[in-house]
Amino acid sequence: MGNNEFYFEVQARDRSGTQARVGKITTPHGSFMTPVFMPVATRAVVKTMSPANLKEAGTTILLGNTYHLAVRPGERLIAKMGGLHRFMAWDGPILTDSGGFQVFSLADLRELSDEGVTFRSHINGDLFCFTPERVIEIQEILGVDIIMPLDHCIGWPATYVEAKEAMERSIQWAKRSLRAKSKKDQALFGIVQGGGYKDLRERCARELVDLDFPGYAIGGLSVGEPKEIMEEMVRAATQILPPEKPRYLMGVGTPQDFLMAIAHGIDMFDCVMPTRNARGGGVFTWNGKLQIRNACHKESPLPLDPKCSCYCCQTFSRSYLHHLFSKKIEDILGLVLLTLHNLTFYHEFMAKIRESIWQGRFREFAEEFLLQSRDPSTNDG
Amino acid sequence: MGNNEFYFEVQARDRSGTQARVGKITTPHGSFMTPVFMPVATRAVVKTMSPANLKEAGTTILLGNTYHLAVRPGERLIAKMGGLHRFMAWDGPILTDSGGFQVFSLADLRELSDEGVTFRSHINGDLFCFTPERVIEIQEILGVDIIMPLDHCIGWPATYVEAKEAMERSIQWAKRSLRAKSKKDQALFGIVQGGGYKDLRERCARELVDLDFPGYAIGGLSVGEPKEIMEEMVRAATQILPPEKPRYLMGVGTPQDFLMAIAHGIDMFDCVMPTRNARGGGVFTWNGKLQIRNACHKESPLPLDPKCSCYCCQTFSRSYLHHLFSKKIEDILGLVLLTLHNLTFYHEFMAKIRESIWQGRFREFAEEFLLQSRDPSTNDG
Repeated sequence: MGNNEFYFEVQARDRSGTQARVGKITTPHGSFMTPVFMPVATRAVVKTMSPANLKEAGTTILLGNTYHLAVRPGERLIAKMGGLHRFMAWDGPILTDSGGFQVFSLADLRELSDEGVTFRSHINGDLFCFTPERVIEIQEILGVDIIMPLDHCIGWPATYVEAKEAMERSIQWAKRSLRAKSKKDQALFGIVQGGGYKDLRERCARELVDLDFPGYAIGGLSVGEPKEIMEEMVRAATQILPPEKPRYLMGVGTPQDFLMAIAHGIDMFDCVMPTRNARGGGVFTWNGKLQIRNACHKESPLPLDPKCSCYCCQTFSRSYLHHLFSKKIEDILGLVLLTLHNLTFYHEFMAKIRESIWQGRFREFAEEFLLQSRDPSTNDG
Repeated sequence: MGNNEFYFEVQARDRSGTQARVGKITTPHGSFMTPVFMPVATRAVVKTMSPANLKEAGTTILLGNTYHLAVRPGERLIAKMGGLHRFMAWDGPILTDSGGFQVFSLADLRELSDEGVTFRSHINGDLFCFTPERVIEIQEILGVDIIMPLDHCIGWPATYVEAKEAMERSIQWAKRSLRAKSKKDQALFGIVQGGGYKDLRERCARELVDLDFPGYAIGGLSVGEPKEIMEEMVRAATQILPPEKPRYLMGVGTPQDFLMAIAHGIDMFDCVMPTRNARGGGVFTWNGKLQIRNACHKESPLPLDPKCSCYCCQTFSRSYLHHLFSKKIEDILGLVLLTLHNLTFYHEFMAKIRESIWQGRFREFAEEFLLQSRDPSTNDG
């Protein structure tokens, strides 16, 4: 932890005709390789997982939610307990989002102005006020490694005027966040907004690049738009964002989404999908998804995924996991084991992608995976 | 697993004036030391715990519930998956109860006769018939190491006539169980019944001793009777049961109960208390119990128990665990961590008891513990 500088180094570029690259990000809490998947530790915990489980699954960086942590237990309590790393006993890198997305999607919004947003917590009704300055302050108190500026998030669909207004306000807030930032050992990323409008995305990216952030996120996607729009917006932004800075596509997504975005040069992802799906019995495998509650698994002696090396796959049959997920049993162990498996799969998926980029065969890897994961013979089909 | 014989060896007797002893039980799935606590794996899982967690906590033998397993997933499915050990991936010894207790407490009882009991499952309403022969068959199909005969369980209080009838029927059923048993690699214990009546307990113990079981359980206690009655019944039975056979006090209990029973020569225990309490936020420590939800732990940087070596105590503060248990957060990780801690405490408690017996100072250990665990200074008080 001697080095308090945030550092990104591109170590390899794909040679199969995509923008994919392998990188290494260094933070005060250690380094990790990109492309990377960040499990979501909303309330200072990746639901069901201990830090030991996360290490076992291959997690190298976590995402925490500023909104949730500010509401409960509050950044002051976390600071009293030694900061977010120590509070949750995770000694690796942590990134926190700005809370913007949750303020606009979860909270009872009271007032929105250029100054900031006032809202009532969805947990206890307490009144909160988020300004760009306050959101930086919270994240500095949490003591994480990568922080995000407050942004004005809109839904899908939105009119051009709405998207433009929210984008412009987000840029103003990004500037204020830069000015408010006081700690040298945290990297503040810029967030590209602009809804589903290519020219807005481009303009936003250009203005943020001028502000020279150490990394850039693309926000406001995976909110219901068609996949083609998502790809168009990712392409529009990545073509402008500087190649020597890391790029983070927020809230995305599926293995298929990763392949698309990495081909455009995206380096970082976060999503609740592997953890949330696991708790509902949904399993990611190298042969596609399966639902462990389906009756076809009741007498299956197979592991979830014969290619997976996780404790769950090395130890238990689908039959046993089906039993754990069956009605009136629904044992917590099933939720833990499927979460461990899905996270292992997500991390292993990224490791294989990095390997394929090193080998200059990312495109081939992507095509093989898309073919394989459509094979119905070994999943629920 | 070469030795298919069930074997019990008393290795040390307390020299501080109690009947406490250290023993070693050998089964086809390995050996364990007594006094021992057996976590309850009702439905082929100790709620929230993986086999790896159990080993970590110090578990050496598990208890499974014949009633629950017969109802779901059914012994046939378990056999198809290679038996209960392989199904749940636990390679150590397993004891199953007879289901008698659950039939009388959980099921919708249809008919009870000398032949057996007919009941509807509390899960799906299916009609089942348990006879002594059928219960032995189920346990032989499950393939566990120690099995129990069907017994007629009564509640507290019960009249002398009720207790006598149930005890006599249980003895008849024990005889039929012995005749029905066909596998040599399972040990069938006798169960002493007799309600809260000393003379019935004594008569039952004597008749069972004549049948020469390899081990003896004491059933029908911890069902609401005063602690003095429990102790009187334990003393009545243990004074008659042969000292060279293991003694198992079913469904008990608290650390205090263990000290009482071990002083009378009990070797084995099972109880849902450490696991069920954990899921409700209740924590056992060397200084007594605490409730992690209590506000006094909100800002406490202390571990649950400074004397505990479990992953939870070595890693997390009470403040963090309080956060995990707080309303609208209630993360599963909290349930897992407290279960791991409580089981570690229970097993460590037994290990310290065994150590004190070796050292001839069990009585001193018991007195110290009772004093210490009343100290309110480091718990919720």
